[in-house]
Amino acid sequence: MLRSRYHAPGAPPGTLASPPQASKPVLTLIEYDRETFEERALDTIDDALPSRDGARVRWINVAGLGDADLLRRLGERFGLHPLALEDVLHVGQRPKLEAYSDHLFMVTWMMYFDDDRQLVFEQVSMFLGKGFLITVLEDPGDVFEPVRERLRHGRGFARSRGHDYLAYALLDAVVDQVFPVLESLGESLEQLEDELLERPTRGCLLELHDLKRTLLQLRRTAWPQRDLLNALSRDDTGLIDRGTHVFLRDCYDHAIRSLEMIEGYRELTAGLNDLYLSSVSHRTNEIIRVLTVVTTIFIPLTFIAGVYGMNFDIMPELRQPWGYFACVGLMATIAGGLLVVFRKKGWI
Amino acid sequence: MLRSRYHAPGAPPGTLASPPQASKPVLTLIEYDRETFEERALDTIDDALPSRDGARVRWINVAGLGDADLLRRLGERFGLHPLALEDVLHVGQRPKLEAYSDHLFMVTWMMYFDDDRQLVFEQVSMFLGKGFLITVLEDPGDVFEPVRERLRHGRGFARSRGHDYLAYALLDAVVDQVFPVLESLGESLEQLEDELLERPTRGCLLELHDLKRTLLQLRRTAWPQRDLLNALSRDDTGLIDRGTHVFLRDCYDHAIRSLEMIEGYRELTAGLNDLYLSSVSHRTNEIIRVLTVVTTIFIPLTFIAGVYGMNFDIMPELRQPWGYFACVGLMATIAGGLLVVFRKKGWI
Amino acid sequence: MLRSRYHAPGAPPGTLASPPQASKPVLTLIEYDRETFEERALDTIDDALPSRDGARVRWINVAGLGDADLLRRLGERFGLHPLALEDVLHVGQRPKLEAYSDHLFMVTWMMYFDDDRQLVFEQVSMFLGKGFLITVLEDPGDVFEPVRERLRHGRGFARSRGHDYLAYALLDAVVDQVFPVLESLGESLEQLEDELLERPTRGCLLELHDLKRTLLQLRRTAWPQRDLLNALSRDDTGLIDRGTHVFLRDCYDHAIRSLEMIEGYRELTAGLNDLYLSSVSHRTNEIIRVLTVVTTIFIPLTFIAGVYGMNFDIMPELRQPWGYFACVGLMATIAGGLLVVFRKKGWI
Amino acid sequence: MLRSRYHAPGAPPGTLASPPQASKPVLTLIEYDRETFEERALDTIDDALPSRDGARVRWINVAGLGDADLLRRLGERFGLHPLALEDVLHVGQRPKLEAYSDHLFMVTWMMYFDDDRQLVFEQVSMFLGKGFLITVLEDPGDVFEPVRERLRHGRGFARSRGHDYLAYALLDAVVDQVFPVLESLGESLEQLEDELLERPTRGCLLELHDLKRTLLQLRRTAWPQRDLLNALSRDDTGLIDRGTHVFLRDCYDHAIRSLEMIEGYRELTAGLNDLYLSSVSHRTNEIIRVLTVVTTIFIPLTFIAGVYGMNFDIMPELRQPWGYFACVGLMATIAGGLLVVFRKKGWI
Amino acid sequence: MLRSRYHAPGAPPGTLASPPQASKPVLTLIEYDRETFEERALDTIDDALPSRDGARVRWINVAGLGDADLLRRLGERFGLHPLALEDVLHVGQRPKLEAYSDHLFMVTWMMYFDDDRQLVFEQVSMFLGKGFLITVLEDPGDVFEPVRERLRHGRGFARSRGHDYLAYALLDAVVDQVFPVLESLGESLEQLEDELLERPTRGCLLELHDLKRTLLQLRRTAWPQRDLLNALSRDDTGLIDRGTHVFLRDCYDHAIRSLEMIEGYRELTAGLNDLYLSSVSHRTNEIIRVLTVVTTIFIPLTFIAGVYGMNFDIMPELRQPWGYFACVGLMATIAGGLLVVFRKKGWI
Repeated sequence: MLRSRYHAPGAPPGTLASPPQASKPVLTLIEYDRETFEERALDTIDDALPSRDGARVRWINVAGLGDADLLRRLGERFGLHPLALEDVLHVGQRPKLEAYSDHLFMVTWMMYFDDDRQLVFEQVSMFLGKGFLITVLEDPGDVFEPVRERLRHGRGFARSRGHDYLAYALLDAVVDQVFPVLESLGESLEQLEDELLERPTRGCLLELHDLKRTLLQLRRTAWPQRDLLNALSRDDTGLIDRGTHVFLRDCYDHAIRSLEMIEGYRELTAGLNDLYLSSVSHRTNEIIRVLTVVTTIFIPLTFIAGVYGMNFDIMPELRQPWGYFACVGLMATIAGGLLVVFRKKGWI
Repeated sequence: MLRSRYHAPGAPPGTLASPPQASKPVLTLIEYDRETFEERALDTIDDALPSRDGARVRWINVAGLGDADLLRRLGERFGLHPLALEDVLHVGQRPKLEAYSDHLFMVTWMMYFDDDRQLVFEQVSMFLGKGFLITVLEDPGDVFEPVRERLRHGRGFARSRGHDYLAYALLDAVVDQVFPVLESLGESLEQLEDELLERPTRGCLLELHDLKRTLLQLRRTAWPQRDLLNALSRDDTGLIDRGTHVFLRDCYDHAIRSLEMIEGYRELTAGLNDLYLSSVSHRTNEIIRVLTVVTTIFIPLTFIAGVYGMNFDIMPELRQPWGYFACVGLMATIAGGLLVVFRKKGWI
Repeated sequence: MLRSRYHAPGAPPGTLASPPQASKPVLTLIEYDRETFEERALDTIDDALPSRDGARVRWINVAGLGDADLLRRLGERFGLHPLALEDVLHVGQRPKLEAYSDHLFMVTWMMYFDDDRQLVFEQVSMFLGKGFLITVLEDPGDVFEPVRERLRHGRGFARSRGHDYLAYALLDAVVDQVFPVLESLGESLEQLEDELLERPTRGCLLELHDLKRTLLQLRRTAWPQRDLLNALSRDDTGLIDRGTHVFLRDCYDHAIRSLEMIEGYRELTAGLNDLYLSSVSHRTNEIIRVLTVVTTIFIPLTFIAGVYGMNFDIMPELRQPWGYFACVGLMATIAGGLLVVFRKKGWI
Repeated sequence: MLRSRYHAPGAPPGTLASPPQASKPVLTLIEYDRETFEERALDTIDDALPSRDGARVRWINVAGLGDADLLRRLGERFGLHPLALEDVLHVGQRPKLEAYSDHLFMVTWMMYFDDDRQLVFEQVSMFLGKGFLITVLEDPGDVFEPVRERLRHGRGFARSRGHDYLAYALLDAVVDQVFPVLESLGESLEQLEDELLERPTRGCLLELHDLKRTLLQLRRTAWPQRDLLNALSRDDTGLIDRGTHVFLRDCYDHAIRSLEMIEGYRELTAGLNDLYLSSVSHRTNEIIRVLTVVTTIFIPLTFIAGVYGMNFDIMPELRQPWGYFACVGLMATIAGGLLVVFRKKGWI
Repeated sequence: MLRSRYHAPGAPPGTLASPPQASKPVLTLIEYDRETFEERALDTIDDALPSRDGARVRWINVAGLGDADLLRRLGERFGLHPLALEDVLHVGQRPKLEAYSDHLFMVTWMMYFDDDRQLVFEQVSMFLGKGFLITVLEDPGDVFEPVRERLRHGRGFARSRGHDYLAYALLDAVVDQVFPVLESLGESLEQLEDELLERPTRGCLLELHDLKRTLLQLRRTAWPQRDLLNALSRDDTGLIDRGTHVFLRDCYDHAIRSLEMIEGYRELTAGLNDLYLSSVSHRTNEIIRVLTVVTTIFIPLTFIAGVYGMNFDIMPELRQPWGYFACVGLMATIAGGLLVVFRKKGWI
């Protein structure tokens, strides 16, 4: 589920307050250039400053929203806009790009399956300025480890570029993680489809409904993420190097592709609902056909048997030696006739 | 429910008439600058004038539409357009921004749950001109109290800005109040979903239908409200200070977010309808299966019992010592055979 | 129903022919300026000429399409385009604005409930030129009486403006009349909704279907009417005075509002259809549950009674003194057991 | 049905091959100016040449696609583009306008009911160049006869205009023929609606499905036809005279009107489907109610009768003189009680 | 099914790795100009170089993705962008056009029915640069054979044009192959429609669902393919000759036509789903009607027979000589009466 938190109506803009039960923030600093690489935990925010000449890339990661004051101080030190900081704390923002005078503020969502196979969404806030990249996460765990690994080991390309390329690499990691999620959903969908046709139970209905919800949330995340990447690749603040645009376009392309998969899955789930209804209707029809055939054959026969079970003193047929056999014969004829009729109607 | 009132067809434009049963207006004036703050009730409209040099912010609040004449005089005094004044009295206007030569006219809707947990909508009309901000409400109660509180106590920021910022603060209060409403609807939705799967009653149907209506109304309010904020943030009349734009953009962002939540909920309710139908179909199918199994087993048996209850003089089986036992055995065989068939079909 | 008449395929453009059963036209002329007002019936079209200097407003109203020749002569005299005149006679045109070199041609629809509470649509054609406003109606009755009344009695504003303002006033009267119609539909909708939930009969179905049709027609009228007003308020032919634009914008706003109400009602009717189906499904489910419970309890009991009604010579149980009582006890046990099962399943 | 033929994948562009079973082409030439008019059959294409000075209008009509070579030669003689000629032979093209360097190529569809009341679509291809108008049809029959008639008899207007006006006249004939078709469909729709409510049979279902298909095809034709007319009225190749634009706009208006009727009908058919389902659900509900009422009343009674038909030696009630009457009284009480319950539930 | 492969989240951009189980690439070179034509297999990529002066057209086809290293070397040699090469290997890309500084990169999908009549999609990647055209396929088989054949045999036109025309010819072959696929689907649809009305089985449901999936995939391919062709025909990189634009426009037109057919088929399948549900509902209704008629007639009769089968000592009717005949008469009357009622209701 998307956790969501909103501005109290009427509260002054730029109010900074930690969400309840937010975890204590963990600060890490990664600093590198083509030749050197440094990674260390920060105890206080006071150790962090924008890189002077922009030669070294400085990435500060804040994992945990439990300390609103720390964010306030971070904002002062790096000149971050209070409205942006408020959005960092009010998780549940839609992915967006806000261009402030000297930095870009981006909100996006990372997602992963937790231990119960539930899809969890987590807001990722990024500030990209001259000489710094700050990311703020809800919890310490993140999807950036492969990027860090590339930075640690990979000399050359990844390390020879600036803050904008790092921002791209992180966004790309966020965007691409939707594909394993979609693959897993796709498998669930196919399995569900088989079950629905085989035996439409209530469990299917529940699962289908859950799939729909999940896809709805993915979609609510994916559309504005696409817009964010589009806006970023058209950015004209000078914070994005021209050489990074081709990578952003590639990332945008991935976002589009994920969107199309989500929309495709949504259509499939809509189709599955129809399939469920049709399948249940079909089964009900079959069951009622059996009921009708059995009832229609035996009820008249039972009636005849009832008639000759009556105790009237004078019932001429009962006295005939051929009575019983004629009666049984009549019953057989009726049953046979009805069977022929039903076969003609295609009911049996 | 959205109360709605329309211009009588063919009536001259700018006709001012109070809605029936409108409450008598209560006038209050709030006036402040960075240093001073004054709040008082006005007895007559004659005490109200635009602020001369715009140094002090003057906010006149008219709560109650019961006195059309008062509005007419207000219009004359502040140069408000008669068509705008007519819209103030014809509640049920869509949220909109009208730019007149020297003032902006805004209509928006505030909403809250009344004592019966019914969602109530109330039109809020605003006039923003040089040296004044006038708000007109349907009833004395409003959602602006937190803003007033900030003005009363908060020196500095909130009080150091002009009429445009005050207008933003009020609009923001109006826009943000949709979030608690949506949260409450979200809870109703989840509860309803559980009920629907557990036991789909007619009460669920009613509640679902009510939810749909409410969401429809929220959406009818939220879309034009978004347009209003968009238009306002692109305003070029000079009535909105450039420094206020970043706040309006933030408010616009909230409006978008609320819209996306509304649309998401609408999709969910549509899904719930499918769920209801599927759930009922499934239950009907189950019930009919039971009926069919029971009937199909017992009807042939009853028929056999009926046959041997007939009173024909000559029925050879009846005279055999093993007759009864053979008959019971036959019945058991038939019943057993049918049970096997049904199990194979997965009906029991 | 929208009456509709079309150009015979392949006929030359500008062919003028009266619709069958069209009523004989009644001509009236209203002429006024700030000081004077004159209203009289015209016997022939020859008395009508455009106002020389535009100082006096001349409004010619032709009510009835029965005389194609009269329209032809009118066209020649006022320089109206033959294609426009053809559209006047081919009722069923969509609302539209056509700008010819020296006059504007407008088509719109007025609507009202006739004596059988059927919604009737009637095409209104208007020609606005330098020095004249011509309106052509299908029948003598119209919705312009309140405007005429304002002209007759109201000195000052209404009479001090030109032909464009008169055109606006008539369009406004046409646009606003949709609101009482919508109000009436809204009431029908709410009543229907209650009935549907209470007792979904076939009458509801019919009424719902009628509502849908009516809304479809309203929508087909309202969308192009909105476009017409939009085009008119952006008109650059010089026929519309700048001072009239603010009024047209107001009228456009009414059109938008009516459109939103129509779309909202359409969504509600769609929801009512779902409601009907769900409600019927629910009721069917309930009825079948009763059937199943009763049948499932009594069929096994009847079978047992049938068994002991058999006439085999040797049926040991029948001879036991406790036989009957044991049998009745068995039946009671079975019935009780089934009742417990059904209660657990929530069927009773 | 729309006949459709496609380019073989990988075949070179501009391949000219007649469709199978295409009829032998019949060529006719119509040539006229304000004073003279000539109409004659052409034996070979060699007699046809563009009009030198454009003073006389030359219209060549080729009815039948059976001779690909003739079209090739026509193309060479008049400078028609090979891709356009290919489209002429590959019937099933969407209506479109292609502007080549010195001629316009238009594809549109004419439609008519054949002898079996089936709607038939036939591709009409037109080449409009300097000094010629060429039309190519699939079969000799066409919808252009009224236009020819106007040219033959009507002096003056129709004959005083150029090739562009003739093209307009033909397009107008094509566009307008949809109205009688729509009128006929509208009548079918209303009839179907009555039947559906009265007695929803399988025949209705079939007819409804056919209507849907027909409307789908009309729509597939009408949308691009509208685009064609729109493109034509904005044409800047100089082939369309400015004076013809007002006529094209009128024709475009007809196309829009037909489109709106088609979309309206499509909505109605969608509504009819819902109506069918609702109507069947309702009838099923009614039938089941009858079944349930009858069964629920008689099954307990039959059970009681069964009990007292048992042959136990000792059944005290049977021996009482009031036994039978008490039993019948009990039965009557039960039946009466159930009837009261059912009436309260509104089932009878 | 569309095979799909995605970038591992967080992996560096431009990572080249072969898909699992990809086949070993087969390289062929086709080189031609107006006079000469050469076609040969390449053993290593080292033999391939861009054509010096562009006079001869050089087409390198790589069939098989099993050798990522070969692609890397190809990329170096021809200056292909690493991100494009990555997309070549990550099959499942959406059709797209990427313009790099000196070459165009196109992705599209070819489709064909495999031996099991399953529709198979295969990604086709193309690089169009100055002096070369490179195509990369997943497997050796392709749809380009007709184009090769035209190049081999056809002198003149096809061979007198440059790389851009060749690229067009290949794209055209890819786009046009959808038509036979659609024709086959159209036949399946019509067959299914007949079956649905005749006898709605579960097989129909499965087939319908499969059709929907296939159409969904076709659509997901066709939309971006249209965009690709649109972008290509507006290309301004100078790689596309102006003379080729008219062909691309024709190809674009084919893409549009295929899209419209796909959308039309999608509407038809949606209609078929409704048809299935309606058809099943109708049949269920019919079956239940039979059940109700039979049950409602015989249950009261059986009850009467049961009453006179009771063994009370004193049952006056039983002793009457006319008792039996009166009873049978009563039964006949009831049955007859019910039959009359049912016929009136239209149930039989």
